[in-house]
Amino acid sequence: MNGLPLSDTPQAVADPVSTLMALAGDDMPRVEALLNERMASPVALIPELAAWLVKAGGKRIRPLITIASARMLGYEGEGHLALAGAVELIHTATLLHDDVVDESELRRGKASANHIWGNPQSVLVGDFLFAQAFMLMVDSGSLDALHVLSRAAAIIAEGEVRQLALVGDIAVSRQSYMDVIDAKTAALFAAAAQVSPILAGRPKAEEDALYTYGRELGLAFQLVDDALDYGGLAALLGKNTGDDFREGKITLPVTLALEKASDEERAFWTRTLGGKTQDESDLDEAITILKRHGALDETLAQARAHAANAQSALSIFPRNEWTAALSALAEFVVDRAY
Amino acid sequence: MNGLPLSDTPQAVADPVSTLMALAGDDMPRVEALLNERMASPVALIPELAAWLVKAGGKRIRPLITIASARMLGYEGEGHLALAGAVELIHTATLLHDDVVDESELRRGKASANHIWGNPQSVLVGDFLFAQAFMLMVDSGSLDALHVLSRAAAIIAEGEVRQLALVGDIAVSRQSYMDVIDAKTAALFAAAAQVSPILAGRPKAEEDALYTYGRELGLAFQLVDDALDYGGLAALLGKNTGDDFREGKITLPVTLALEKASDEERAFWTRTLGGKTQDESDLDEAITILKRHGALDETLAQARAHAANAQSALSIFPRNEWTAALSALAEFVVDRAY
Repeated sequence: MNGLPLSDTPQAVADPVSTLMALAGDDMPRVEALLNERMASPVALIPELAAWLVKAGGKRIRPLITIASARMLGYEGEGHLALAGAVELIHTATLLHDDVVDESELRRGKASANHIWGNPQSVLVGDFLFAQAFMLMVDSGSLDALHVLSRAAAIIAEGEVRQLALVGDIAVSRQSYMDVIDAKTAALFAAAAQVSPILAGRPKAEEDALYTYGRELGLAFQLVDDALDYGGLAALLGKNTGDDFREGKITLPVTLALEKASDEERAFWTRTLGGKTQDESDLDEAITILKRHGALDETLAQARAHAANAQSALSIFPRNEWTAALSALAEFVVDRAY
Repeated sequence: MNGLPLSDTPQAVADPVSTLMALAGDDMPRVEALLNERMASPVALIPELAAWLVKAGGKRIRPLITIASARMLGYEGEGHLALAGAVELIHTATLLHDDVVDESELRRGKASANHIWGNPQSVLVGDFLFAQAFMLMVDSGSLDALHVLSRAAAIIAEGEVRQLALVGDIAVSRQSYMDVIDAKTAALFAAAAQVSPILAGRPKAEEDALYTYGRELGLAFQLVDDALDYGGLAALLGKNTGDDFREGKITLPVTLALEKASDEERAFWTRTLGGKTQDESDLDEAITILKRHGALDETLAQARAHAANAQSALSIFPRNEWTAALSALAEFVVDRAY
């Protein structure tokens, strides 16, 4: 275990997602029920396609952050359920559109929705889920939370457009890369955490702290994802390894390796990412170059630093099982890479 | 002039859009300013692409309905400006995504955004505008209006998915067609009118009346559009004539002609729309068949009936320059076809 030694509840370190799910009682099952309700439609394709993505779903980390933040603050209403559902629906709509944008054929190791049903269907069902997300937010009754989440949705789209403009551009700076992931990934994590203190009517300092928690966790999450796309530290090639490479996306590992590149290496990146002229051995070669310069190590070190920032942001709250589990979640996100 | 003789202000009949714009004082310029603000982004492609669509824009009929309804009701706040802007942004986002879905190369006789910038860009900028629409709605301060507009956005997407499933299906019934246009077009017109009485805190009867006004106007608008796609009554081939035919969309004129089709005609529709095997003379042949069965006449008669329903819905309001102009607007929408 190479994680940060900041949590004092060992079982939470082992699996903070399960710990948070258990602490939240029936909150997460109720969020699932809301998601199912919102995917309902007499137009058969909608529940079919949405279920493919939502039900096959990931770990529900984003809505779990909303739920856990609200419960940590002692919130006793039901608005956090609607907001958590909205967060997951925005995330799902974004994934659907991302796959169209990236022309992906796989998502989480399964055929992607656009590959099965087509791009037009993915675009429209994404729009449907996006609209349903806003209906759920309205149910929460909080205009301030709506503002935060609609702003996050705009920032995500902005980040995706920015990323698209940078595909294949090997001159991308670290800062440009960080701006992209701040928008496309961290903004939704930040909003997911920030809406809970807003809903609970807590002081601005707590809203800022949870915003920072979510944002830093989101940055760590994306950095780890980008390292995992090249196999992570173990360079264990997972289901989705090499997606970024094939799509010509310049992520932090590549940016770091480019800063130290020999002429020959620069020519390699220019050909494979700039020109997207790749053959089968190129991904292995890319990983070899990244490891030569310690680029995956350095990326994960930065992820750990952001996870530590997320943990620090929790320090203004009383220490209890919620803060311990949220703190452990920040480590967990980084530990995925090992 | 073949319009309905229900309006008593001749100048409004001549151009009710200009009449309403003038009555609304600086409301519409202020809505334009909001639209420009919302398209701003440090990511250059966003204002560029959005401006192409928003600025080149249509007649702004939807936001004008929101503005005019609010002013007709004596609303004196500013929330109607934000809601009108939101309505136009939802419409614009929908157009961007529609062009991707339909693989359109033209929009209002100009190259479509997806044709110039690409499908991924159109999908993402559409998402950005959609999110901005919700931020504007939040500015209006009305959760009830937000509910109505987010519900409309979901219904639009649902209608588009339904339409997609029916492309090339020559067995489509009149009712299925009406369900599609009720969702993809009339829902936003209805919401545009309905949000004003909500914002102004008017009784449910007035909300229902304006909902009906908007919905019926939207149905008339779409029926006319579908007739115009085959040249309308004059069969003057306009810039966009034949789009539906080429895309295999089964609209009301075709549905009506199919009900009366000879075996030979049915074979024609099956080949051209069902199989999308078309040559250059087929559009002319399609128009000839439609005229043989009076299908364009009948479509426009139905449009006139819906416009008359829109006008009737206004009868619960005091007669004044606003109701006269809104009534004239319903005629104007149908008169486009002549």
